[in-house]
Amino acid sequence: MRLRNKSWAKPLIEAHPDMITVTPLGMQGKWQERFAQNQPLMLEVGSGKGKFITEMAAAHPELNFIALELQEVAIAYVLRKQVELELPNLQLILGDGANLTEYFAPAEVTGVYLNFSDPWPKTRHEKRRLTYKSFLDQYKAIMHKDGVLQFKTDNQGLFEYSLVSMNNYGMKFDMVSLDLHNDARVVDNIETEYEHKFSSRGGRIYQLVARY
Amino acid sequence: MRLRNKSWAKPLIEAHPDMITVTPLGMQGKWQERFAQNQPLMLEVGSGKGKFITEMAAAHPELNFIALELQEVAIAYVLRKQVELELPNLQLILGDGANLTEYFAPAEVTGVYLNFSDPWPKTRHEKRRLTYKSFLDQYKAIMHKDGVLQFKTDNQGLFEYSLVSMNNYGMKFDMVSLDLHNDARVVDNIETEYEHKFSSRGGRIYQLVARY
Repeated sequence: MRLRNKSWAKPLIEAHPDMITVTPLGMQGKWQERFAQNQPLMLEVGSGKGKFITEMAAAHPELNFIALELQEVAIAYVLRKQVELELPNLQLILGDGANLTEYFAPAEVTGVYLNFSDPWPKTRHEKRRLTYKSFLDQYKAIMHKDGVLQFKTDNQGLFEYSLVSMNNYGMKFDMVSLDLHNDARVVDNIETEYEHKFSSRGGRIYQLVARY
Repeated sequence: MRLRNKSWAKPLIEAHPDMITVTPLGMQGKWQERFAQNQPLMLEVGSGKGKFITEMAAAHPELNFIALELQEVAIAYVLRKQVELELPNLQLILGDGANLTEYFAPAEVTGVYLNFSDPWPKTRHEKRRLTYKSFLDQYKAIMHKDGVLQFKTDNQGLFEYSLVSMNNYGMKFDMVSLDLHNDARVVDNIETEYEHKFSSRGGRIYQLVARY
């Protein structure tokens, strides 16, 4: 979802270099230095306005979190939350999900979250979907061998595609939910902004948890 | 679904040894002899009353079909249809889906259909589900290496389970549909009795097509 520009976004980002890194280069293998504690690192690719990642970080002080987002305005909204919350286990990146291997070292990341990514429904845009094989290559390259990829979407076509794509890639499924919000197995789901709105109107949420 | 016994069932079966085989032993590798033509063999495990398999056989004269069913009354309903239709590419088996490797030789079967199998929702009954790994072992043992397994269900829990089970087994997904009856990719779906009723009341049908 493209957001309207905000004049406060860029100055806010520039004022908080301790909380946010812009297009991080030379940071590979060094992310733990930016956190209060050295603990497993979880990355959300495409954080939007950050409801999910800030609530996850608050609920899981035993893990470190990074919110990665391409849109300056969106990550500025996440930053605004973090300026208020000052979570010691949350860092932000303004950067491109297509460049993960430039940002992270092999095995540096333990978990990857993909939440309500753009479905890119047209066949000619398949390569832009965050579950296309070139992206799966990237997650694999930066993830610990025991790491887990968690993917949520409301988009039926993207979920069908992603089940086939991740299966064909050779990933191992841990869990599939075809109706996450009515799934007795799930007790600790944290919603994104979009998920909350969509689900409150009765829409189904799908989830796949898989590993390499 | 368990059907009420019918007094005509057993005599009908006994009267048509050319169309139906009861607990076939010694038939491994010889099924083609029972058909008018030697052509790829498709097996439905759990045929119920046979709407699906008889319509498939009528629509695809270029393939041979076998309806396998454990319940005598149910297979007798299929037989009643076949006595009327006399399809040269359809054979019936009254037998147990747990004994496939006793009935068929390796690579004898090209396609396996699982339609609206009993979901066995209790965890302690997992081993009875037709997509449990011991059943996947059996299909693999009798299937040609290019063979395809097509699985349809309306049961969300069984579909979630089967996606994980078949993925963990190492099967390769060709196609997933989370709403088969509204899927633009599918133009030739043939319904079972149950599917027709369930779907006409607005229920969702799931489909997975996979290979070994």
